[in-house]
Formats: sequence, C-alpha cells, structure tokens
Amino acid sequence: VHDVTGGPGGPALLSVLRDGVARTRSELAASTGLARSTVSVRLARLVADGLVVELDRSASTRGRPSALYALGIERRLIGSIVLGVTHADVALTDLSGDVLSRRPSSLDIADGPLAVLDRVTSTLADLVTERGRSHDDVLGIGIGLPGPVEFATGRPISPPIMPGWDQFDIAGHLRRRFDVPVVADNDVNVMALGERTIGAVEDTDFVVVKVATGIGAGVVAGGTLVRGGDGAAGDIGHIRVDTGHDRPCRCGQVGCCETIASGVGIAATLRQMGIPAFSTADVVGLVRGGHLDAIRVVREAGRVIGAALVACICVLNPSRIIVGGELAEAGEPLLAGIREVIYQRSQPFASDRLQVAPTAHGELAGVIGASRLVQDLLFGS
Amino acid sequence: VHDVTGGPGGPALLSVLRDGVARTRSELAASTGLARSTVSVRLARLVADGLVVELDRSASTRGRPSALYALGIERRLIGSIVLGVTHADVALTDLSGDVLSRRPSSLDIADGPLAVLDRVTSTLADLVTERGRSHDDVLGIGIGLPGPVEFATGRPISPPIMPGWDQFDIAGHLRRRFDVPVVADNDVNVMALGERTIGAVEDTDFVVVKVATGIGAGVVAGGTLVRGGDGAAGDIGHIRVDTGHDRPCRCGQVGCCETIASGVGIAATLRQMGIPAFSTADVVGLVRGGHLDAIRVVREAGRVIGAALVACICVLNPSRIIVGGELAEAGEPLLAGIREVIYQRSQPFASDRLQVAPTAHGELAGVIGASRLVQDLLFGS
Repeated sequence: VHDVTGGPGGPALLSVLRDGVARTRSELAASTGLARSTVSVRLARLVADGLVVELDRSASTRGRPSALYALGIERRLIGSIVLGVTHADVALTDLSGDVLSRRPSSLDIADGPLAVLDRVTSTLADLVTERGRSHDDVLGIGIGLPGPVEFATGRPISPPIMPGWDQFDIAGHLRRRFDVPVVADNDVNVMALGERTIGAVEDTDFVVVKVATGIGAGVVAGGTLVRGGDGAAGDIGHIRVDTGHDRPCRCGQVGCCETIASGVGIAATLRQMGIPAFSTADVVGLVRGGHLDAIRVVREAGRVIGAALVACICVLNPSRIIVGGELAEAGEPLLAGIREVIYQRSQPFASDRLQVAPTAHGELAGVIGASRLVQDLLFGS
Repeated sequence: VHDVTGGPGGPALLSVLRDGVARTRSELAASTGLARSTVSVRLARLVADGLVVELDRSASTRGRPSALYALGIERRLIGSIVLGVTHADVALTDLSGDVLSRRPSSLDIADGPLAVLDRVTSTLADLVTERGRSHDDVLGIGIGLPGPVEFATGRPISPPIMPGWDQFDIAGHLRRRFDVPVVADNDVNVMALGERTIGAVEDTDFVVVKVATGIGAGVVAGGTLVRGGDGAAGDIGHIRVDTGHDRPCRCGQVGCCETIASGVGIAATLRQMGIPAFSTADVVGLVRGGHLDAIRVVREAGRVIGAALVACICVLNPSRIIVGGELAEAGEPLLAGIREVIYQRSQPFASDRLQVAPTAHGELAGVIGASRLVQDLLFGS
C-alpha cells in the first residue's frame, strides 16, 4: 500500500495542519521543528497526493509572496464503516472527519465476511459515485466490528457473535475494491474514538459502554484508546458480578454481567416471566410502551452493569462514563440503575467528579470514530 | 523552579540522547527533525546545565573536527524516595536511573508529613554529601507515597492510611531543602514505572499488584502509566468480589477484596482462628515457617486477589501481571491462588499469552521508578 503521509516528517506536518489553519512554510518549520528544506520536500509530496493544498499567496512583510498551505480537507475522502450484529452504517467523510454522506442498512453479521464486506464496499462505492467523486479520491477506510479485533493485523479474534469471521483478512478483502490503507477495530473502540473526537478535549479519561446484544466498553486513558495486549481491552460484559442468577454465559462461565444485563439477557429474563421479548428492540419497545415489568428488569440490568462499572472505576478512575448502544434507547431506567450502583459503591474521591451520561451522539460517534482510525494513521494519534 | 530541559526542543534532544550514545550536532538534527541552529542553541544551554556533556572531537570525513554530545549521565543526580507505611527507601541515581547509593530505613507514615519528609530529606542530603557531591548536583526528586496522589499537584488525596497527609504540599516542603522539581506519585505507580524501566520493552500492557497493608495496582497500557482522572487508577483493593465474608472495609463498603486478601485482612482471619498474627510480617513469617492454616488462608487470599484481577483483565487485557509487595514474600501460596482463579475465569483469548509472575526486582523497582518520574519530566515520557 502506497504511503500517503509524505514520508518521515509528513505526519508531523499533517498533525499541525489538522486544525484547518493555513500556514506558511516558515510557520510549519517553526511548529514542527523540522528543517525548512525537509518541510518543502514533504509539502511537495503531500500537495501531489492531495492531502495538502497550496492556497493563494499572501504578501509577506518583506513584500515577497509566501505560499500558504492547508489540509486538503475536501480533496480526499475517508470511507467509514461500522458493522453491528444486525445493521451496518457506511459513510464518507472528509479528512477532518466531517460526514459528507451516510447510509445505514440492515444486515446479518452471521452471513459471513465475504457477503457482508462485499455489500458494504458496494455501498461505499455508491456513495463515492453519488457525490461525483472517483475511487482514487478515497485515502483510506476505517471499519468497526462487533467483536474483538487484533489491532495490529486488523483481524477479528474468536468473535463470539460473528461466525465465520475469525482471523478473516478484512483489509485484504476490502483492498480488492479500494487499494488503500484499511484500519479495523472493534465497534466500541470506534465509538470511544468518535466521542473523543466530537466531545472536545476536557475528558482524557473516559469509558464508553455499549449495551446491545452483548456488553462492551471502549476505554480512553490519558487521552489514548486502551487496546490491551491482544486488542481485547474493554471486555466488561464478562466481569463477574453478583447477579442473583447462575445463568450460563456464552463464554462458558457463570455470573458474567452480560448474562443478565445485555439485550439478550434481559429478553431471556422477560421470557421467563412469560413476556414475549426476543431482541433488544423488543425490550426497548416494551420499556417505551411503559411495560412495568420490563422497566423493572431493565433497571435491574442497569444495576448489574453499574456493578461491573464499579470495578472499571477502581481500575481506571475515569472522569466520565458514556452509555450507548441499542439498549440505551430504553432511556432512564437503564441509566438510573447504573448510576444507583456506581454512586453507592464507588470510592468518594473516584466518583466526586464522575459524570455518567447517555451518549449525546449515538451511532454518529461510530462513523466519526471509524474515520478517525484512518486520520490517526495518517496524521498520528 | 528553573526549567532544566533547555527550553523548547530540549526534551526532544534529551530523549534521543537518553540511550547513552554520543552524537554530533548533525546527527541530533537528523534524529529530532530540529533545525541545526535550534540544536546548537539548546545544546549550549544543556551543556551549561550539566545535562549534556561535550566529548572529545572526532575528525569528520571532511577533516573538520565535529563535537560529540552525550547525556551527562553522572554529572547530575536524581533523588529517589519511596515511602511505605512502615519503611522508607531513599536513593541517589544518575540521569539514566542507575542507583548510585541507597538507604532503607524504618518509619511510621502516621508521624505525619513534616516529620517524615524532614527525615528522608536529611537522608538524601547525607547520601549526596557521602558521595562528595553538592546539593546543586541534584536535578530533581521523585517520590512514591503509599496512597492516592493527585499527579498534577503532587498532593495526596484522602489517603486512608496516611493520617495528616491529605492535600499536603510535598513538593513545596521538599524544596525548602532542595530547590528542584519534585514529582510525586503513589507507590504502586512508581513500582510500575520501575518495572517498565528495568523490564525491557516487550510488554506495553501490564499490571503491577502490590499486596501489603493494603492492595493496589500500577497500570501500564500501551506503554503509558494510567493515572486516571483524579490519580486514583489502579485502586483494585476495593473491587468487590465474592469473598464469602461480609467484613467491613475501611472505605465503608463490604466485599472489597482487601478486607480479606491484604496483610491486614489475612492477619484478621488468622486471629479469628486463634492464631496470633498482627502484621503482614507476621503472616509472611508463619507461611515461611510452614504453618498450614496460614498457608491455606494466604492461598485463599490469592484467590480473592485473582478474582479482582479477572475484572482487571476484562478491562485492560494486559499481557503480564507482576505480583509484589511485602505479602508477595509469602511466595507460592499467594501466587498459586492468584493464578488458579485467573486461569479458571478469564476469557481464553485474554489469558492465552498472559504471564502472572512475582516481581523480579522487589523494592529496587520502586526507587528506579521514582527516579524515572524525574527522567520523564526532563526527557519526555
């Protein structure tokens, strides 16, 4: 794959230009500490590749015209794909991560990587064409997957709800259609990156919890996404808590918080009570319809998630917990249960300034985060 | 406090020179990307401050002599202090973190900050004098404390076993004797930094667990120490696990792993069994003497710590867990209990490559880590 960052020093230049402000060569040399000759060589390459544009010349104080350079935000595109278990979200963004077009669709992740990836790649190609752009304008593709991903290789590792995807070479397959860098990560990490991008700079330590078919978290510590040794960090659905049940988990253990508190777990509890619920959507529908038993079970699920998060808080001391995922659409009962246990059980100094809030951006955070995977590759994270 | 890093660009130069290899100005310009003129200005300042030394000139290929620069490893000193609840460890290191001299002593942390800090500062001053060096040679002081520290201010925050230390201005007090930058952190973070320094580069994701009077952890994720929003990360002693007891914790909760598994907790269990044990040292003595009940209780404590670490592993996916602290001197029974539960309960892909091992460096890791706090301030972490 062609290195599109302008060689050594290129990411430093792109990183400075990332704020959208146009700068002269001298200013870029000063900001990056690079020698002026290096700046000139790298800029020429970046301009040729369309990542940087040369703007109209402004008269310098000595009267000699001095070129201004800015990120070629709109000249190149990033493909952004977020796969869930039952839906996909495909988008095109510019280099700054602004979403230019976006197309959600239904899918079944169990159709396997060939069918699913071919479908979303076609959608991406359609979005490119509809905007009157060429395949060559796409600089990279970021993709979020609903299971653990080995970040270094971009391959899913033993994903429990993605039959047929284990170790599949996602980047290699996508490159048959778009010969560009492909960066894959799990969907919660992608949400966390998106929240970090959208949510301004103040929180450098936060956790995004996704409550849907399963439960997972994206962890940002000291401003950096925590991936762990095998890309399996944030696997909080398998924290053991006192659930009052001994329902077996799909992982083979008992007591995992997601046996009770995931969409699947809550639906199972409701069915045991004789209430027909077969999916997260059914649960959300019942709660929104004011079904008292469903509200009670969802609040109890919130408490169970809260207990897992208390362990998370001990380990990480985040200043914010963001609750998202399809079940978060059930609203207050879930959040109230989570907050109840967190504030009851956490250490005072760890919870004094802790905010627990629903995601303000929902699935948009996912597509922005998947775009960010590519920006971080290009510009440095 | 005087900025000793040579101004902007200074840390980049120091960071390159940190490996101990001598370099020419040209080589430094190439490695850092800084302009040659910048390199010259910064080097002059660093040489004047004694952080960098100019070595004998080597003939360049063009026959013109070219100066070589290297870190002035032995010209300046770092003071390294690790405080425990009942002991202190004071050391002098060079700029590379090599320990030049070291003096452990007993103390009672409850004597309060004035008495304790005056004593260890005197010890540090003695070490400086005994090596025939001057106070002015000390470039900075790193200090580890047995409780939570707000890293930004270096002040202890509500430390449960450090009466009188809450919000004390440690840096301000130490500077009355040594007017240099002072960096404070909790003792487990300092151990983790030390292990990272000693333990080579391969593990970028690991957890150091200290089992002593209390239980705490130092967390390194992606090569960086995780401090959390309030400096309280790694507080794993308060993860709630099924201990089979409802003994109240000093934090006001029940079920915290340290109620059962800390030195204090184990001694309490042994006393309930009619065995006289009043400190961690007593527990270690009993285990080493082959006392079967003590061995059994310590192994059970290991299981409880293991259960807390399973939650830690879900959140962080570390590739190594290092067990240290005074109780680790009890040896195999503790480690066997920890391993038993970790390998029984963790997800396969998170534990496949996970190593659980005792610290290879013991308290030496602490003094090296405390020195590292200062090196990271000077050279960039």
